Amino acid sequence: MEEKEMSVMAHPVEAIIATADAAIANEDFDALMDIYCEDALLVIRPGVNVTGKAQIRRAFEAIAAHFNHSVRVSQAGIMVLEASDTALVLAKTVVSTSNVPDVTRNATYVFRKDSSGCWHCAIDNSYGHELLSAEEAPGVLPEE
Amino acid sequence: MEEKEMSVMAHPVEAIIATADAAIANEDFDALMDIYCEDALLVIRPGVNVTGKAQIRRAFEAIAAHFNHSVRVSQAGIMVLEASDTALVLAKTVVSTSNVPDVTRNATYVFRKDSSGCWHCAIDNSYGHELLSAEEAPGVLPEE
Repeated sequence: MEEKEMSVMAHPVEAIIATADAAIANEDFDALMDIYCEDALLVIRPGVNVTGKAQIRRAFEAIAAHFNHSVRVSQAGIMVLEASDTALVLAKTVVSTSNVPDVTRNATYVFRKDSSGCWHCAIDNSYGHELLSAEEAPGVLPEE
Repeated sequence: MEEKEMSVMAHPVEAIIATADAAIANEDFDALMDIYCEDALLVIRPGVNVTGKAQIRRAFEAIAAHFNHSVRVSQAGIMVLEASDTALVLAKTVVSTSNVPDVTRNATYVFRKDSSGCWHCAIDNSYGHELLSAEEAPGVLPEE
């Protein structure tokens, strides 16, 4: 069991997520976009998705500006399930900004492994199951 | 918004999940296995996964026997996010058996679209984020 947990901790997708968290803090959007598939989907807030690197970059730029360049993202817990060149990430994602209290979300991310063995994020849904009850749990991120 | 919800309801993966739910009730394991990728991953209970159709079939057979052939699965809510031939399903999955009270889980499923346009389940994790706090939320499904 201990070995299994150590094995899970070593999944390469976890290092990519750490890189993404640092890129968001540094507002290094070139590095951030390297993490996504070309046609990736990002849930900006419940009911509002964007698709493709150009839209995702604009969304992150708008979010950074809206929160006075204070956005920090970290993972308080993470598990990766992999099958069929596909990885499902279950994470306790903590979003911090100077404007609003910290929020911890049960985030769900999906990564795909390409033919060269590289992983990229296909679906970035930090809201997890909140999408099923969006009227009860409005997002903290801004309108575009 | 109404149109969007109708569009989400029409995703072909939802019909596949309904077929899977019926196949579990009918113990039609041939039909059930048609739904999975060859190397799919099934979370039997937190900390115990199986991989590949042969192991998944044996797990469902063991579960059916353990619960006296009374297992019923239904979806009380469902949302599909699709990108890059990959679909993330967020569901409120209700598991009913004659032995124990009904359980509703925040389930996470990942489907892959193959080159012929057919969707198959790559990752079947009915426990969702319970995997991150398994000691607090033991599974109801049996050991193999």
